[in-house]
Amino acid sequence: MASKEEVGKLEWRISVDNGTTERLVPKSGLSKRIFLWLKGLVMKMIVEGIAKFTRKAWRIGADDPAKVVHCLKVGLALSLVSIFYYMRPLYDGVGGNAMWAIMTVVVVFESNVGATFSKCVNRVVATILAGSLGIAVHWVASQSGKAEVLVIGSSVFLFAFAATYSRFVPSFKARFDYGAIIFILTFSLVSVGGYRVDKLVDLAQQRVSTIAIGTSICIIITVFFCPIWAGSQLHRLVERNLQKLADSLDGCVAEYFKVKEVSANQNEDEETIMKLQGFKCVLNSKGTEESMANLARWEPAHGSFNFRHPWKLYVKIGAAMRRCAYCLENLSICINYETEAPDQVKKHFEEACMKLSSASSKILRELADMMKNTRKSSKMDFLVFDMNSAVQELQETLKTVPIETNKPEEEVTSGEDNKGDGEDRAMSMSLHEVLPVTTLVSLLIENATRIQTTVEAVDELANLADFKQDSKKKTGDNNTKQPPPSS
Amino acid sequence: MASKEEVGKLEWRISVDNGTTERLVPKSGLSKRIFLWLKGLVMKMIVEGIAKFTRKAWRIGADDPAKVVHCLKVGLALSLVSIFYYMRPLYDGVGGNAMWAIMTVVVVFESNVGATFSKCVNRVVATILAGSLGIAVHWVASQSGKAEVLVIGSSVFLFAFAATYSRFVPSFKARFDYGAIIFILTFSLVSVGGYRVDKLVDLAQQRVSTIAIGTSICIIITVFFCPIWAGSQLHRLVERNLQKLADSLDGCVAEYFKVKEVSANQNEDEETIMKLQGFKCVLNSKGTEESMANLARWEPAHGSFNFRHPWKLYVKIGAAMRRCAYCLENLSICINYETEAPDQVKKHFEEACMKLSSASSKILRELADMMKNTRKSSKMDFLVFDMNSAVQELQETLKTVPIETNKPEEEVTSGEDNKGDGEDRAMSMSLHEVLPVTTLVSLLIENATRIQTTVEAVDELANLADFKQDSKKKTGDNNTKQPPPSS
Repeated sequence: MASKEEVGKLEWRISVDNGTTERLVPKSGLSKRIFLWLKGLVMKMIVEGIAKFTRKAWRIGADDPAKVVHCLKVGLALSLVSIFYYMRPLYDGVGGNAMWAIMTVVVVFESNVGATFSKCVNRVVATILAGSLGIAVHWVASQSGKAEVLVIGSSVFLFAFAATYSRFVPSFKARFDYGAIIFILTFSLVSVGGYRVDKLVDLAQQRVSTIAIGTSICIIITVFFCPIWAGSQLHRLVERNLQKLADSLDGCVAEYFKVKEVSANQNEDEETIMKLQGFKCVLNSKGTEESMANLARWEPAHGSFNFRHPWKLYVKIGAAMRRCAYCLENLSICINYETEAPDQVKKHFEEACMKLSSASSKILRELADMMKNTRKSSKMDFLVFDMNSAVQELQETLKTVPIETNKPEEEVTSGEDNKGDGEDRAMSMSLHEVLPVTTLVSLLIENATRIQTTVEAVDELANLADFKQDSKKKTGDNNTKQPPPSS
Repeated sequence: MASKEEVGKLEWRISVDNGTTERLVPKSGLSKRIFLWLKGLVMKMIVEGIAKFTRKAWRIGADDPAKVVHCLKVGLALSLVSIFYYMRPLYDGVGGNAMWAIMTVVVVFESNVGATFSKCVNRVVATILAGSLGIAVHWVASQSGKAEVLVIGSSVFLFAFAATYSRFVPSFKARFDYGAIIFILTFSLVSVGGYRVDKLVDLAQQRVSTIAIGTSICIIITVFFCPIWAGSQLHRLVERNLQKLADSLDGCVAEYFKVKEVSANQNEDEETIMKLQGFKCVLNSKGTEESMANLARWEPAHGSFNFRHPWKLYVKIGAAMRRCAYCLENLSICINYETEAPDQVKKHFEEACMKLSSASSKILRELADMMKNTRKSSKMDFLVFDMNSAVQELQETLKTVPIETNKPEEEVTSGEDNKGDGEDRAMSMSLHEVLPVTTLVSLLIENATRIQTTVEAVDELANLADFKQDSKKKTGDNNTKQPPPSS
């Protein structure tokens, strides 16, 4: 049979192909083939889609297990609150309004304690406030006879207007944005709803109690089951960012002085590039820092943070770090500059630049370590002193740089105090050629100033938050050989 | 009477003070005085508080009348939707579930069309999806006899887990975050609530119809009453930021070359400082740009933006502008540098720097103008050519700078082609002294490169969004005296 040969490789075709009606069999075979092909395609797509999604989801979960924990907690809270539906006495106890408890859990449960607290407080306070106001308006309206609808309508309009307007006031919005929405919602429901409901006070009371049940479940679960604190997250974020700044700084300066010598080495590790780009995280974390600092204020004392922990200072530290990051961003100018500085000039500056950058990054790492262990630093003064002397050294190097203008082959014997080796002495270049180096130098010096601002901000935090004293005393550390006369 | 003299100035004391029981009168007088004083204090505080709040609120409204319009629209939408309560037939029509319409309006109505659309679509789709799924689960559960609670509970747990997890996927979160919440909410309410409600399908249907009523009211009001488009806001934001960058650039360079000459002039206008700091708005607008671009995609065609307007490009333009802003941020290094460059050096560079900065800011202003009038630019090529030649000129100036190292009093006759006047020729300074100038130069040159990236991004937008052709033809403009050979 011809048709057998055509599709002989398919198992199902061979077993089917011994029927009597020859025209029907191939037809059914074709449609079956199409069907099976489509089925296979769809199954393949579904399987692939699921596999892809699972991989993606798995990566997100593996990167940050706290997210998985949060999802489990949401499920748990919802299961708990559903008990009010399943158990008759509980259901009747809240007059069939158990729905509001579920709704509260869904909209109030956030991934960190601060956000959940803030939403709970907002929801409860706004509900009570708007509920009582709504009942009052409803009473006034019911006394006013025919004008009832008018009174209710205009009060809804006015309060909705006022509450929406208040959401545009930044200081109000930062803390009570959710409350304003709930206020409008509850006020409208109570005052307008009161037009059709008889036992308004009962209704309002049940609603408040169900919301209270919902918020209590949220707060208990969010605080007692693997709590995720906005404050700790903010603290770690700042710590990580300090680390990243240090890595970036080291990386950029090393890149400038190294890569062009070994320019063949193009396929660098991804990790190195990631480290180089670390400052970008600092550039982009302004919004996160501010919202976290806002949320952290709602949180009770936890870990090493007490209730009045100065969260606002984290925003200040973040701002200071961002200013450092701006400097690092512009270091790319030097790295990508079209005209390379002559090797001799580079060599002349290399030591001083590397020294300054390593002194700077040491400070950043010490700051990160301070944050990590919430301790004061005993050697910070030494490190800052080191950095400042590195700045001075770099400035000295600048003053003694053996540069001439466009008069080639002229010997310049500058009084160099920078361990200059012989080949440094005879150079000829224009300012144009040294531009990248001078830019690097000037950015590094500015960066040092900005790091000092960061140090001050972290010190302020350490003092206000009562970080513990450093256990290591000022013993001979590798980095602090000489004591600072004054830093 | 002594007591009369003590408080004789108070009217109320005099009229009271002729009673027979002398001891009681002063007592009542004292408590009254305290009461009146407290009353006065509270009244004063209230009046002052109201006055202060009114002033603040007025300023917010005066600065951006769109906000007042939004508040009025919220009031209007709520008043409209309350009609469902006031009118018996309408109320009965939705089976007393009019509450959901009010709730929808309150939580869905946002200040711009895109956000409202996005929330409406999310709410409707998620409600329908979760509602049908909930009914299905409820049916399965009701078939499973004693395991009903178990089936419902575990499905709520699973779906809540999955939906919460999906909120952590960034691409999903950007568009469907609200939908995920509504999905969890509706699914829980329907599947769990079904345990106690008999006519579940009726309930679900009524709920969907009330939500549909609420969303339609929101959409009608948000689109037809003074619509506030996220897209237009984003467009204007980018345009304003381009303008601010141009002002800042001009301001910073002028500041560097001027202020130190006229250093007595400390009390500069606030406006000038505001202009100088304009780049900070660009630095901080990343989050706004991204969320606006996300919302603008939901909006229908409006004004000069059609449905598939490339909103994503605004984020790209914003990123390019921010890179310019990083350069400007670091210009402050030069302005605040401790060692001033000698006047002669400054003068040497002033012309070329001013030329480059004005060429750069002209491009930024032209870009702002392109955005403003949604037109292509016919003279952009000229302007970019101008800027590039200004860069080259500045580089030439660098090459010819009359600098020597620390050998004072040596005459350097550099071949300067930069209209150098006599006094430039004899200078002596170290690289240290010219550091701020070289930094300025290098930042300006880098800034020019980054502006070119911005130009490319805006050009891409102009092409993709079919900006109209420039009406002004390439006639002799002030700025474009010579045609570019190749830019």
